[in-house]
Amino acid sequence: MKCRKCGGAAALELRRHNAAFCPPHFTEFFRKQVAEAVHRHRMFTRDETILVAVSGGKDSLGLWDVLLEEGYRTAGLYLDLGIFEYSEESRAKCEAFAAARGQVLHVERVADAVGAPIPGVQKLTRRPTCSACGLSKRYLMNRAALAHGYPVVATGHNLDDEAATLFSSVLHWQTDALSRQSPALPSTHAKLVRRVKPLYRLSELETAAYAFLRGIDYVVDECPFSKGATSLAHKDVLNRLEEASPGAKHNFLFGFLDKGRPAFERVENVELRECSTCGQVTTGEICAFCKLADLVKRRT
Amino acid sequence: MKCRKCGGAAALELRRHNAAFCPPHFTEFFRKQVAEAVHRHRMFTRDETILVAVSGGKDSLGLWDVLLEEGYRTAGLYLDLGIFEYSEESRAKCEAFAAARGQVLHVERVADAVGAPIPGVQKLTRRPTCSACGLSKRYLMNRAALAHGYPVVATGHNLDDEAATLFSSVLHWQTDALSRQSPALPSTHAKLVRRVKPLYRLSELETAAYAFLRGIDYVVDECPFSKGATSLAHKDVLNRLEEASPGAKHNFLFGFLDKGRPAFERVENVELRECSTCGQVTTGEICAFCKLADLVKRRT
Repeated sequence: MKCRKCGGAAALELRRHNAAFCPPHFTEFFRKQVAEAVHRHRMFTRDETILVAVSGGKDSLGLWDVLLEEGYRTAGLYLDLGIFEYSEESRAKCEAFAAARGQVLHVERVADAVGAPIPGVQKLTRRPTCSACGLSKRYLMNRAALAHGYPVVATGHNLDDEAATLFSSVLHWQTDALSRQSPALPSTHAKLVRRVKPLYRLSELETAAYAFLRGIDYVVDECPFSKGATSLAHKDVLNRLEEASPGAKHNFLFGFLDKGRPAFERVENVELRECSTCGQVTTGEICAFCKLADLVKRRT
Repeated sequence: MKCRKCGGAAALELRRHNAAFCPPHFTEFFRKQVAEAVHRHRMFTRDETILVAVSGGKDSLGLWDVLLEEGYRTAGLYLDLGIFEYSEESRAKCEAFAAARGQVLHVERVADAVGAPIPGVQKLTRRPTCSACGLSKRYLMNRAALAHGYPVVATGHNLDDEAATLFSSVLHWQTDALSRQSPALPSTHAKLVRRVKPLYRLSELETAAYAFLRGIDYVVDECPFSKGATSLAHKDVLNRLEEASPGAKHNFLFGFLDKGRPAFERVENVELRECSTCGQVTTGEICAFCKLADLVKRRT
């Protein structure tokens, strides 16, 4: 295999692009895909400081790296989920990454905010772990961005993540989720910052290759709670389809953004208000996060 | 396992309904599902004669059987695709079924209409076999119904067929196909008869069980051209999802009909006209079937 750009020895074949690249031209390709995502969805400008939500994994640290390489102003946010050694190791990787590059890393502990670490939340509330964790992360990302004055949060969701989420929404025809799925969610309220996913054009294999080639030290293990998760089963299905027909995931996600999503978009007539407990945005009287925290408190 | 209805020994477990049935109560369940489909989508009335498109397989012969059991007026239509012994055997099964029940069976040969049997069409046109075959079948079903004065054609598509078609449309976000997928397609032109799928609520396993329990003699082999077909690969994916989560196929298809399809439905502003060659309905000057037949003729 030869690099499409220089004819040198290729290190990576990208079947869905019918291309192969040597290491330097692969990282160039990677950066171009990020630039295309940022440009196409007007994710942020060079005047803004981007809060990058980092977990210590290949995707989010790769994202932070590429944004720095592209010259953007950034800060990191590590949400400590309190998942035993997994969280400790993840935090250490994020701190080392930030320190080596002279970047600010904000750290928030889920346990401080919700009253217990994620394993405790699961035990106390019997709520599915991934659901309580996702809710807490979205809440804390927004709260931290507001508190520190960042206008936008960037997450490391890649093509595989987005395709799996879409697949799940489609299997159940969750029209609310379908109308909201996008690489860039605008701010629809003064207390809601923008959320963007600059890696949505890049597959999991590609983010792993980028992190490897850039020498990023990341946590390889998956979250111990992800075992048996439906999202992993859906990724498996999509990987089989991709294997049989390269580009299947890409076509599924991009076809949706192009042709499917417009069908589900409607005038956002949901009234947003401020939670009477914490002041963050919600559609009801008390936000879902405060309800979760209250449940944890009562059962502790 | 005990029958949900009578407590007797169950012959069949339906995991997605969390139920099991003995043979008589399974056939009762089956008939009720067909009655529900007919009622919910107002497929036809008892005053109409339904043209049942039969292939000789379990689904279409099972459909014809249940419609007769329910007391509907019917006639059969066998489309001879000219696929060697497969078509000969299929035709014999359909003729025997019709003769035993004193029913009319119309037979049309694809070769007479298009100029070559399906294997010949494939060779001459290089068009994917299933695509040319599907086009020919839809065309000839409508033409035969019009010619003999039947207002509606019923086909044996089951839940698995419909879910697989939907899955394929969704993977590529074919919005036209999504807006058209329905258990009951209305007549939108004087020369277009209604098309209905009374088995859409029943899985392939259930139609097989019904045909077996009713002692229907059907062709077990799949069409020799279906090997490697994408639709079979998609059925395989859906079967895995069903295995992990009983009801997945049902929820996917029914969720679409309930919540997805309305998003894709729009005012049908496609102007239908009559083909200048054959007079059947088309959106262009010459219909796709006549174009196919012309191509076959020129290359023979």
